[in-house]
Amino acid sequence: MAGAIQDLADLLARLPGVGRRTATRLVFHMLKANSDYTDALGTSIATLHEKIRRCSICANISDSDPCSICDDATRDARVICVVESVPDLWAIESSGSYRGRFHVLHGLLKPLDGVGPDDLNVDLLSDRTHNSEVEEVIVATRPSVEGEATALLIKHALAEAGVHLTRIASGVPHGSELEYTDSRTLDRAIDDRREMK
Amino acid sequence: MAGAIQDLADLLARLPGVGRRTATRLVFHMLKANSDYTDALGTSIATLHEKIRRCSICANISDSDPCSICDDATRDARVICVVESVPDLWAIESSGSYRGRFHVLHGLLKPLDGVGPDDLNVDLLSDRTHNSEVEEVIVATRPSVEGEATALLIKHALAEAGVHLTRIASGVPHGSELEYTDSRTLDRAIDDRREMK
Repeated sequence: MAGAIQDLADLLARLPGVGRRTATRLVFHMLKANSDYTDALGTSIATLHEKIRRCSICANISDSDPCSICDDATRDARVICVVESVPDLWAIESSGSYRGRFHVLHGLLKPLDGVGPDDLNVDLLSDRTHNSEVEEVIVATRPSVEGEATALLIKHALAEAGVHLTRIASGVPHGSELEYTDSRTLDRAIDDRREMK
Repeated sequence: MAGAIQDLADLLARLPGVGRRTATRLVFHMLKANSDYTDALGTSIATLHEKIRRCSICANISDSDPCSICDDATRDARVICVVESVPDLWAIESSGSYRGRFHVLHGLLKPLDGVGPDDLNVDLLSDRTHNSEVEEVIVATRPSVEGEATALLIKHALAEAGVHLTRIASGVPHGSELEYTDSRTLDRAIDDRREMK
């Protein structure tokens, strides 16, 4: 390998999950691909940072401010789902059933890693919920020590907001076998059991 | 996902071994990465096709013609190693011990897929070996039906060239266990056995 090919392989190998061998295979795929495709892909990557915006309402990342979700009048502005990250937002969006708004924290409370309450996007959430049409805030941080601590932080921050605060359910995932489910999850599933209708 | 992010994820998902989930993860990594990196990566991909050349001597792909290997006067011009593809050439180069020249066929004989003798870069090889300083041609196509058929094609094409024609050894790979080696490879390893010195 030499020159342009080597340079591109080096850059690709810095992506997560891409080793030297995969990087070489990708370069060779691009060499064989149509140059229209490599032009589009390259330009799309090179201009990514210029194009994206952080939504001033919910902190979602997209190419407009406000983002398409905050800007969509058909979505229910009375419900806000609080998520750790933009990929978490995407995951809930692609599940398709949620039609409210979002709020992205861009992190979880991790005191040992130096992430404190001021590093999370909580003040803006507090502003959104005080004296507004918002009726419910669903805390959708992951069920882990950090996720629960962050949920508590939000509970304190919104104590005076007069909104209905809820937490996503935690339990045995759909389709999985109880035999192979960890004991924390099983405990949780039993504690959070609900009436059968 | 929306706009620029969705577009880039769609383009990345067309790469081999990259599904929707990996594409999304890569976009998010790029969003978090320094924009110097994404600029360099994007430009490198977008300009790849402009920068690369096919070597008019050996058909290697690099950013110069002749390629750096053909242009390197310290390499032994008396030996040509014939390979199926540029990645095969890179693999031999990175093993580090071969110091001769190469010749890239850009394919193997596959009559059922419509790849005939005229689709391979054999005429140029024949030209390189007739009335030249070339003394040995090592056929390094893979040990498979197509690889052997292609080796035979080269043997016929170079019949009048007066060069010493050799074939890479095939046998049990270094470090592997005989117990798990397929029977074709074991047959081959026994048939091609050599004197111990």
